[in-house]
Amino acid sequence: MEHLPLTAAHAGGNPTLIPVGNLTIGRDFLVIAGPCAIESEEQMMQTAAAVKAAGANMLRGGVEKPRTSPYAFRGLGRQGLAYLSAAGRAVGLPVVTEVLDPRDMDWIIQSADVLQIGARNMQNFPLLVEAGRTHKPVILKRGLSSTLAEWLASAEYIMNAGNPQVMLCERGIRTFETYTRNTMDIGAIAALKQLTHLPVLADPSHGTGRAELVAPMALSAIWAGCDGMEIEVHPAPQEALSDPGQQLTPAQFQGLMGKVRQVLVWRKALENGSVYGYRTNLHNL
Amino acid sequence: MEHLPLTAAHAGGNPTLIPVGNLTIGRDFLVIAGPCAIESEEQMMQTAAAVKAAGANMLRGGVEKPRTSPYAFRGLGRQGLAYLSAAGRAVGLPVVTEVLDPRDMDWIIQSADVLQIGARNMQNFPLLVEAGRTHKPVILKRGLSSTLAEWLASAEYIMNAGNPQVMLCERGIRTFETYTRNTMDIGAIAALKQLTHLPVLADPSHGTGRAELVAPMALSAIWAGCDGMEIEVHPAPQEALSDPGQQLTPAQFQGLMGKVRQVLVWRKALENGSVYGYRTNLHNL
Amino acid sequence: MEHLPLTAAHAGGNPTLIPVGNLTIGRDFLVIAGPCAIESEEQMMQTAAAVKAAGANMLRGGVEKPRTSPYAFRGLGRQGLAYLSAAGRAVGLPVVTEVLDPRDMDWIIQSADVLQIGARNMQNFPLLVEAGRTHKPVILKRGLSSTLAEWLASAEYIMNAGNPQVMLCERGIRTFETYTRNTMDIGAIAALKQLTHLPVLADPSHGTGRAELVAPMALSAIWAGCDGMEIEVHPAPQEALSDPGQQLTPAQFQGLMGKVRQVLVWRKALENGSVYGYRTNLHNL
Amino acid sequence: MEHLPLTAAHAGGNPTLIPVGNLTIGRDFLVIAGPCAIESEEQMMQTAAAVKAAGANMLRGGVEKPRTSPYAFRGLGRQGLAYLSAAGRAVGLPVVTEVLDPRDMDWIIQSADVLQIGARNMQNFPLLVEAGRTHKPVILKRGLSSTLAEWLASAEYIMNAGNPQVMLCERGIRTFETYTRNTMDIGAIAALKQLTHLPVLADPSHGTGRAELVAPMALSAIWAGCDGMEIEVHPAPQEALSDPGQQLTPAQFQGLMGKVRQVLVWRKALENGSVYGYRTNLHNL
Repeated sequence: MEHLPLTAAHAGGNPTLIPVGNLTIGRDFLVIAGPCAIESEEQMMQTAAAVKAAGANMLRGGVEKPRTSPYAFRGLGRQGLAYLSAAGRAVGLPVVTEVLDPRDMDWIIQSADVLQIGARNMQNFPLLVEAGRTHKPVILKRGLSSTLAEWLASAEYIMNAGNPQVMLCERGIRTFETYTRNTMDIGAIAALKQLTHLPVLADPSHGTGRAELVAPMALSAIWAGCDGMEIEVHPAPQEALSDPGQQLTPAQFQGLMGKVRQVLVWRKALENGSVYGYRTNLHNL
Repeated sequence: MEHLPLTAAHAGGNPTLIPVGNLTIGRDFLVIAGPCAIESEEQMMQTAAAVKAAGANMLRGGVEKPRTSPYAFRGLGRQGLAYLSAAGRAVGLPVVTEVLDPRDMDWIIQSADVLQIGARNMQNFPLLVEAGRTHKPVILKRGLSSTLAEWLASAEYIMNAGNPQVMLCERGIRTFETYTRNTMDIGAIAALKQLTHLPVLADPSHGTGRAELVAPMALSAIWAGCDGMEIEVHPAPQEALSDPGQQLTPAQFQGLMGKVRQVLVWRKALENGSVYGYRTNLHNL
Repeated sequence: MEHLPLTAAHAGGNPTLIPVGNLTIGRDFLVIAGPCAIESEEQMMQTAAAVKAAGANMLRGGVEKPRTSPYAFRGLGRQGLAYLSAAGRAVGLPVVTEVLDPRDMDWIIQSADVLQIGARNMQNFPLLVEAGRTHKPVILKRGLSSTLAEWLASAEYIMNAGNPQVMLCERGIRTFETYTRNTMDIGAIAALKQLTHLPVLADPSHGTGRAELVAPMALSAIWAGCDGMEIEVHPAPQEALSDPGQQLTPAQFQGLMGKVRQVLVWRKALENGSVYGYRTNLHNL
Repeated sequence: MEHLPLTAAHAGGNPTLIPVGNLTIGRDFLVIAGPCAIESEEQMMQTAAAVKAAGANMLRGGVEKPRTSPYAFRGLGRQGLAYLSAAGRAVGLPVVTEVLDPRDMDWIIQSADVLQIGARNMQNFPLLVEAGRTHKPVILKRGLSSTLAEWLASAEYIMNAGNPQVMLCERGIRTFETYTRNTMDIGAIAALKQLTHLPVLADPSHGTGRAELVAPMALSAIWAGCDGMEIEVHPAPQEALSDPGQQLTPAQFQGLMGKVRQVLVWRKALENGSVYGYRTNLHNL
């Protein structure tokens, strides 16, 4: 693998901790929940209350949606961000949203606590550099057909531009399989815990594209060593304007969270997590 | 997905149970261990004793190795099978080996308790039919770039030829990632537990190609719902004639087995495994 | 690339020439035509007459079809070979058919002039060795997701077993593209003409899966340097029992052959084909 | 394929013609040549003179380079564009360069005659929209693992934003093959000539990554029906700061151009190009 001095794990080093409000990512297990796209104020308020009650510690929602076709719903933009921000404040959760365009960085960082760079932009280098010039934590999703080396090099871009607060999020790669939307590379999570000191997240919603597979894959990702996860939740998934098949109902999410909490206790009990490579801290949720 | 009446799960049905000696696969969690290739009598005896002591309940070893180059070590053939069989008897473990050629079926079924069909032969239809004419349980590995639909159709070939005792083993698919030898499709395990009543196994040794990733991926696969696993173990991996990077030492395997036993207890405790789709029985190891 | 002494091109060497009846493959441009699967005596007789009249110099037809599902049409077997052989004799064309099973080699070589090993069997090593023990020329198709190095290593298996008469046939690889059945790797043809002395064929029927793309891809393959091609032709493609979308009608094939003949003259005129690497002979059709 | 009203070919329609200076792309065969990256004024002047003399009708050069690692050479920026523009004027060739960042559009369109959007940005939707608001012709390269449907949808973004002057450039897709840098999907060119009225270009330099394969692939692409091509040329490829293996010397490019001119005459002679689907005009060079 290429020389990537800022992202590479090194012997004796500590994992990166990223403070967001009361959270310390890397020590506290991160659970981001919320809809694929922000569709209305009511949708966000309902979702925020539900995911907070279930135990999520960050709220998500898409303001600008990267859609294959120009005729698909592309998000509510600034109005959407206002809904997200208000909903987060109402329930006391920090918020994360995706940024698509370096020109939108200024207004997005005024309301978002965490930035997300999506799979299609993993090698959008001006966007990486711009995110690197902010002081906001950045979730960098893996590109649809990117290797680990390319992904880490993209994290290096952000860090090299001045921002050390980077998280990597495995969201599935494109393969020949069509039953699942993507193929979630759980092994990448385990490998990254050895290769880098950055926190590693899992996104089983995009990783599978099927609501009924989200729970087993969330639990699997925990046992591969992830530091958190991102789960799409919608008050009425079948009516969602994007990704209807993969979003959980609030009740399904609540059920999942019970399992996640239990499994995290067990993971911690398993010889202090010693199978997971680069790790000195264990998670609380 | 195509109409596959023999392999498809159906509402209210029971998962397939496959008896092998004292084992009942599907109810007892299967742990197959042993070297990639059988290299000598001593190697097999040492490995058999070690994996038995660590808790494996089936012994593996390659008699005929499918190698990309004709100049690579291709296995000991009948002599190798004699070593495998003797080692299994010595420690009281049933044995499994791969069959490459329909003409070898006769002598292999005389000594092997279970047959394996490898990734490169997943669509070797005459071999599937021949395995379907035996009365031996068959482990069918997933092809290097096969879809779930193709894999299940290959299982259907074996069942349609008369043999209902088929297990599916996820061993990683070919992707653009080069850090790991293959990309282990953990989501396929979760999906298959919903799509079929057949037992589903995981092979993290081939799935990662890296000994240091075998433990986290084995635990992940358990949480995706697998019914067993296959782990390569060699007395001295660095001297192995094939796959030196992915075989565990006996000591590493013993460490892994302690974790596997613990995690299986926890999985059983998690609401009776209710997240795993097609499943009524829970495993003992 | 691995050391493959038998298949590798070497400085100053000559390309391999393979005599079949009056043909000398490598000097005469090979055009193999015929249906995907042999369905009836009449179908074969009609097709043979039509492709002979249009200028094909070898007849093809599938006797045993490797089908994903066990419930699909799997070919007429020995009866099909009798039809193929009779049709070839009737019009004076040598015949080629695919062999799937090493146990069928004996009866197939009694009637087939050339053997074909299909994509799914490119790494069926016992079948490669068995083909290597015959004295029949072998067309080795590329595996669905195989690299050039793996493909050449499979050719080396055949040669190492004693048979130097091997041709390589590019038939498209599996990619994410779904509009075409496969993605025809025309660059592989150009690369192989530099890497090996073996004849290289193109199969635009499987390479595209669409009849309307066969002609442009056939012409492209010629300009990449191929030594021949294989084209599926059926008297009534829409009624074919397999691959209905990619087979040409006799009239379409005749139109294609006119273009092929013309383009081969032009290729020969282009500085004696000097762009095509390992080549000393130019083709006649 | 999705409904893409602006890009889709329709019965009886005409292919899009794009005027650039004295050129009419779609009627005149386009040959873009120049270095991967602009490195110095002298390099650009030498290259411009050489490619003009050899017959190219557009000059290229990378001003901003999308590089996997932040530590690689990332281009000369505005200074580079000044060199490109001056070199184009000096020899009378229009110039094309890649734009990576929507914020750079203003200064780039002041000097560039044609814009290029690279493979990594095929789904950078804000950049597509911004290019769609200019009046400059846009070359849209195919994403590394994009389907035809996704590629055409990205072209639709540009057209939907107001700019109908879009060209599609096949530059190879990512596959498992490692001998070539990418796998050039020549079949995509043939398919696009039937699916869309937009001009289709070929980039055999990126498509193969190997100088010795550029000539055969350029000729193949012509026979698949392309409307032009883009060839990397560098005065001293082995000293290039990026892509040293795939750039042609001026002498190699001159040799290629002689063949291209000849082959275009032959293609025109072949039944008026009637095999190439959506086409009423034939090319001059």
